[in-house]
Amino acid sequence: MALAHKGLDVETIPWRFTEKDRIAPATTVPVLVDGDKRIADSWAIVNYLEDRYPDRPSLFGGAAGRALTRFYVDWANVMVASSIARLVLVDIFDHLAPRDRDYFRRTREQRFGMTLEAAMADRDRRLPAFRDSLNPMRLVLKHQKFLGGDEPLQADYTVFGCFQWARCISAFRLLEESDPVAAWRETLLDRFEGLARKAPGYPV
Amino acid sequence: MALAHKGLDVETIPWRFTEKDRIAPATTVPVLVDGDKRIADSWAIVNYLEDRYPDRPSLFGGAAGRALTRFYVDWANVMVASSIARLVLVDIFDHLAPRDRDYFRRTREQRFGMTLEAAMADRDRRLPAFRDSLNPMRLVLKHQKFLGGDEPLQADYTVFGCFQWARCISAFRLLEESDPVAAWRETLLDRFEGLARKAPGYPV
Repeated sequence: MALAHKGLDVETIPWRFTEKDRIAPATTVPVLVDGDKRIADSWAIVNYLEDRYPDRPSLFGGAAGRALTRFYVDWANVMVASSIARLVLVDIFDHLAPRDRDYFRRTREQRFGMTLEAAMADRDRRLPAFRDSLNPMRLVLKHQKFLGGDEPLQADYTVFGCFQWARCISAFRLLEESDPVAAWRETLLDRFEGLARKAPGYPV
Repeated sequence: MALAHKGLDVETIPWRFTEKDRIAPATTVPVLVDGDKRIADSWAIVNYLEDRYPDRPSLFGGAAGRALTRFYVDWANVMVASSIARLVLVDIFDHLAPRDRDYFRRTREQRFGMTLEAAMADRDRRLPAFRDSLNPMRLVLKHQKFLGGDEPLQADYTVFGCFQWARCISAFRLLEESDPVAAWRETLLDRFEGLARKAPGYPV
């Protein structure tokens, strides 16, 4: 979404969990390759894009906007992505290539301190708390169309990315249809000629 | 803090919960009186200040910053202020003038669906969850000095206001001394020649 916002042509390279050698010295995706530059970590990547392509549409709307966007990154990680992870954990596993399954099960079961199945087991009971955790965002969307205002900014893409990740890997319904957050997600699925909607995924 | 950020001289008018007639047609504080203008609601007030005094230091750092600040307001209300309320509820009551006590007890007990004492009873048990809810902010403060970047912006004052409210009314220790959020709060207590620290309150 950030690359599309900047109007940059991009080639995406499929990658599997266990192909660590292909992204070294980075250890996690995303990794951006731009000429001879390799940048890992999504926050580092969007900052690089903003600085490298200053004449393209801004992802932050200025220096203050950049600083203020940092909170969205951490909120999305701590509150949104980590909650979604436990709601779709087995769905992720079921979509993995056989050779990635042992790695995924071992590392995630270590992280959660229980089996994947146990971690996801009570997802229907945890769903209301997840939806409640989005209340601050729901209130913002009463006042403005996007977190970034009239048009989306990186703050939107950061949170949207959590939902897009889930959409690509799970049929589990995270949001009620009538939820303003769901309407916001639909709008972003349509952006850039339906870029995110074209990615393989489940209807949500 | 917003008025001080704008470098505006201000006279504060003490007011009690039950003096509704003095702020009508507004029903809640804060209310800003600027010449013949009266503005209620803190988000409306800071937007008014930004538009009315554009040549003074910006509270938002531009249009994007203004839109991005809205989330902090709702996050502070939903996640921070409402949690703090239940941690200091009886302390507020104990500081009220006798004539405000019935009003406060009746309206707050209706809101919480239980007595003030019952709502606050398990505060030590709820404290860790409150501290955990600040994790996104704690992570931001690893990267930058303020939510607004190198210098505080309205996003900082919005969250700081929740702590300052508690500090003025309760000796309950909301944050551990070693918490980066506590360090951030100290810095803001010192701002504007110790403006917030000079307000009557408890050491925190």
